[in-house]
Amino acid sequence: MATESAQPKEQIVDPWTAKAGEGEKKINYDKLIVQFGSERIDESLLQRIETLSKKPAHHFLRRGIFFSHRDVPDILNAYEQNKPFFLYTGRGPSSESMHLGHLIPFLFTKYLQDVFDVPLVIQMTDDEKFMWRDLGLEEAHRLAYENAKDIIACGFDVNKTFIFSNLDYMSCCPSFYRNVLRIQKCVTCNQAKGIFGFQDTDSIGKMAFPAVQAAPSFSTTFPDIFGDNKDVRCLIPCAIDQDPYFRMTRDVAPRLGYHKPALLHSTFFPALQGPQSKMSASDPTSSIFLTDTPKEIEQKINKYAFSGGCDTKEEHEKHGGNTDADVSYQYLTFFMEDDERLAEIKKNYESGKLLTGQLKKELIGVLQKLVGDHQARRAEVTMDVVKQFMTPRPLNFKLSA
Amino acid sequence: MATESAQPKEQIVDPWTAKAGEGEKKINYDKLIVQFGSERIDESLLQRIETLSKKPAHHFLRRGIFFSHRDVPDILNAYEQNKPFFLYTGRGPSSESMHLGHLIPFLFTKYLQDVFDVPLVIQMTDDEKFMWRDLGLEEAHRLAYENAKDIIACGFDVNKTFIFSNLDYMSCCPSFYRNVLRIQKCVTCNQAKGIFGFQDTDSIGKMAFPAVQAAPSFSTTFPDIFGDNKDVRCLIPCAIDQDPYFRMTRDVAPRLGYHKPALLHSTFFPALQGPQSKMSASDPTSSIFLTDTPKEIEQKINKYAFSGGCDTKEEHEKHGGNTDADVSYQYLTFFMEDDERLAEIKKNYESGKLLTGQLKKELIGVLQKLVGDHQARRAEVTMDVVKQFMTPRPLNFKLSA
Repeated sequence: MATESAQPKEQIVDPWTAKAGEGEKKINYDKLIVQFGSERIDESLLQRIETLSKKPAHHFLRRGIFFSHRDVPDILNAYEQNKPFFLYTGRGPSSESMHLGHLIPFLFTKYLQDVFDVPLVIQMTDDEKFMWRDLGLEEAHRLAYENAKDIIACGFDVNKTFIFSNLDYMSCCPSFYRNVLRIQKCVTCNQAKGIFGFQDTDSIGKMAFPAVQAAPSFSTTFPDIFGDNKDVRCLIPCAIDQDPYFRMTRDVAPRLGYHKPALLHSTFFPALQGPQSKMSASDPTSSIFLTDTPKEIEQKINKYAFSGGCDTKEEHEKHGGNTDADVSYQYLTFFMEDDERLAEIKKNYESGKLLTGQLKKELIGVLQKLVGDHQARRAEVTMDVVKQFMTPRPLNFKLSA
Repeated sequence: MATESAQPKEQIVDPWTAKAGEGEKKINYDKLIVQFGSERIDESLLQRIETLSKKPAHHFLRRGIFFSHRDVPDILNAYEQNKPFFLYTGRGPSSESMHLGHLIPFLFTKYLQDVFDVPLVIQMTDDEKFMWRDLGLEEAHRLAYENAKDIIACGFDVNKTFIFSNLDYMSCCPSFYRNVLRIQKCVTCNQAKGIFGFQDTDSIGKMAFPAVQAAPSFSTTFPDIFGDNKDVRCLIPCAIDQDPYFRMTRDVAPRLGYHKPALLHSTFFPALQGPQSKMSASDPTSSIFLTDTPKEIEQKINKYAFSGGCDTKEEHEKHGGNTDADVSYQYLTFFMEDDERLAEIKKNYESGKLLTGQLKKELIGVLQKLVGDHQARRAEVTMDVVKQFMTPRPLNFKLSA
């Protein structure tokens, strides 16, 4: 992981690593768009989303947190023509409690589900976590259910959302294994090595897994929802480190008679130590967990959140703070919805009027409420509710006539 | 396949190829034992099998058709101590109708089930055939059911036999995918390349598959039969070309807390053209199919069966025939159960008293009866019977106290 070793010469972004290049303070997302061959979300796409959804764009879009995409116009065209599409996102359940960074794709996916009123499938890759980590299968499976509670607490509509553990779903849905095999047949080891950086010293399970993450991009993986309709487009909101899986999927899709899945990519949620790496559950000092108490949140922000302010009050008042580098300010761009208030904070911090301690206090308040509300909602999520979400079943949505 | 191209310099035997080396008339099985590191089935092992089973050894054992093994004494020790073991064999359903060669492991497995009274699992690798061949998934799945009829017609005890299609069983049994993942985590791409000769140009599905063939060696893959008991040993009767899968399995087994599976290896059933290659369903002129009519059997043997006799009657009567090279005689060693009659034929053919035409006529009679009886039994195998065999369920056997 990024926080565990030195910075590499060139930035590295793949499903297992997110590190800024040597001498860089943060991941260079412009470079990433060029490197991955995706497209920037520009003003006109943003406006089209607003027009079609008849709602203001989510602040993640307005603020460039979701910054890159593939083929989103195709999804919007389909939507405009009353053709159905579905959302697909996922989570690798590697730790008991999720952190703030894990929330990002889910908060955004909930917005998409709300404004477009479409079905959503959420893959819990317990099989992947078993394969990559020093973790037993049953423990990974248990974590999938624990993490599902946090995901459900984001407020998804049970009538439009199917959450599944790979271990469960592979063992009950014939279409899943079939689509995995179809994808595996189309991808050579050479290609997988090129896309994911696998080595011959890696396990054959790692080599096989990308097809498992690819399969839910195809509607027939969910016969209870879509029957055998291959014509339902898929839109995947995810952090940009997951893009390699879907580059592979998009390469395979036409050969199997599917539309290429469309994507919406987010930046990473920065570690407390700064935006040169992402928040990581395996380094507790880098993360605010969804289980943290108000006190812990306060302490972590005060102790660890990298400051873009000057060393002394005098200097800060003179030169002002750097909001680009300041983790507390960055976190506010994720979680403070009020644009005006945020602009005011930025102005005052950069001018030196607002001190780091005051900025941190502002953030602490926002996070304590966010995490507290989340905890209250999660406490309502019983195992019965989890089972409802995780039972394969028809979802409530309109297929076009 | 062996019959499709020239002979290689060194003999090649792996799950996809069986070819004698340059200038060799047949596969050198002695060399194979050394190469694979297995053990020859010797007289003392044969006698021990007879003693414990309280029956004469099957003629496949007496005649060296099953010639090699791994750890069979461990199975016999367990049996002697009233500890349970189970049989595992399989079939890749690549063609509508099976040929004589395909029968060999099943006829032998039935003998083992009869004399040791143990449960048996039979894997139909429809997923493998999809991955390796130009074959659709549903076609491979259908062939699995068609081939299951032929297997059932060998006379297995429905109360002690579970036949499963991988496509079906992966999608209904949680333990199967779990054991596949556990095995995949233990095997590197390097190892799979070394064992199976995979290249980077091969699909990731090929790289992944060996774990699917390995998993049924572990009793917990069948919770309906063995619960979560990891202590049930597995004995695998198979043609020796399948050994690479189980070398890999034996390497992994102790790391996962299982006994290494034991093996009984058969030689190949020779092609009509001679024992330098094996009978192959993809070359119809090399094979007698279980669907052939009496007339077709007669014509194929007369037309294609390679003769070890001399070119003219006079020469044959003078020099005699070569039973080592003669395919018709070889086939009789597989299917003529009467030892005395076979010895007489050998003597008379080698002395030149029995002509090739007469030998072929003898074989034609044996095969017409064998195939005719098989067809009659297969006609009785309804889809209801197939479903009985292919439903996951407890089997009737005693676990030790």
